Amino acid sequence: MQETVLERLIKTLAKLPGLGPRSARRAALHLVKNKETQLKQLSDLLLRCHAEMQVCAVCGNIDTVSPCYICQDERRSDSSICIVEEVADLWALERGGVFKGKYHVLGGTLSAIEARGPEELGLGKLLMRIKTDNVEEIILATNVTVEGQTTAHYITEQARPLGVKISRLAQGIPIGGELDYMDEGTLSAAMKARLVVG
Amino acid sequence: MQETVLERLIKTLAKLPGLGPRSARRAALHLVKNKETQLKQLSDLLLRCHAEMQVCAVCGNIDTVSPCYICQDERRSDSSICIVEEVADLWALERGGVFKGKYHVLGGTLSAIEARGPEELGLGKLLMRIKTDNVEEIILATNVTVEGQTTAHYITEQARPLGVKISRLAQGIPIGGELDYMDEGTLSAAMKARLVVG
Repeated sequence: MQETVLERLIKTLAKLPGLGPRSARRAALHLVKNKETQLKQLSDLLLRCHAEMQVCAVCGNIDTVSPCYICQDERRSDSSICIVEEVADLWALERGGVFKGKYHVLGGTLSAIEARGPEELGLGKLLMRIKTDNVEEIILATNVTVEGQTTAHYITEQARPLGVKISRLAQGIPIGGELDYMDEGTLSAAMKARLVVG
Repeated sequence: MQETVLERLIKTLAKLPGLGPRSARRAALHLVKNKETQLKQLSDLLLRCHAEMQVCAVCGNIDTVSPCYICQDERRSDSSICIVEEVADLWALERGGVFKGKYHVLGGTLSAIEARGPEELGLGKLLMRIKTDNVEEIILATNVTVEGQTTAHYITEQARPLGVKISRLAQGIPIGGELDYMDEGTLSAAMKARLVVG
């Protein structure tokens, strides 16, 4: 049987992260059953996103304008840049509301396997930005994975000659974390970075 | 801050079954990052689904034509109708390839709480179909839940005067099922319906 438009919708939905074949079927059915409301709304929003969304030329964030709303925000300090792997990480920090400077989205990590070197990550652009924008501090907020930490280490080496302050996020037990469920790496990091409290 | 088109896309995706706020964010980001391929493709397919998909006037299935491809299939017998709650259930049975008759999709169950009575489910239309289409057997394939079984019981009562054979799917231990993981209801049903094998 020829593939129907519905089967193609299910296959396309199944490619989204977090959706498997089964949930893609349920989602497609839900959309088709609510054709005039939810399917129409999603379709309209996708058209608008396709037309409007773009990558910020300054920091790599995704927004309807470039420079993005964060780069344009004059209440945010230019003097510190938080370096993250992905836009999703930027969003996570923004949800926390813990940072009032600017961002730099790498778009990934250094990876020998995926053939991503410093050029592919645009690290030259980052270093140029640090030099020209009077940046006082860069905060390394890459993931605490081998790739993320390797990338952070490389950036540290490259940025050190620029005389900028370089920091990274603290590592330890997450809030609400139970020691019994923590891996040895986390426990070891938390022990090493222990703070004197009395 | 005003809600952006991206935030609205995330909220709309989060309404899909199987997607929460977190996976909706990941999916939206994935789409926007692959704007010219995946976002475009999904957008096009949704537009086509919106234009083409319709409910089959005969059985309640969803297809690009009405009567649907199953109702039109002359190799399938008209003499038995399998009654399911949702289109997803029809798909599940079709994946199994276990049934070669026609279907009837109720679109839900009888429910006092959700104020769905026999009229809302269109049971009159089902009974009319049984009478006029020379149906010999109806197979009750509603879910094995209180609502599904109540609905099946009600249909049985209504269809009995029509002199049609009425059956339901067998209940018992699923294939690959381990007794230790089965609930008492399933074990009890399997025991009651035990078969003599020697």
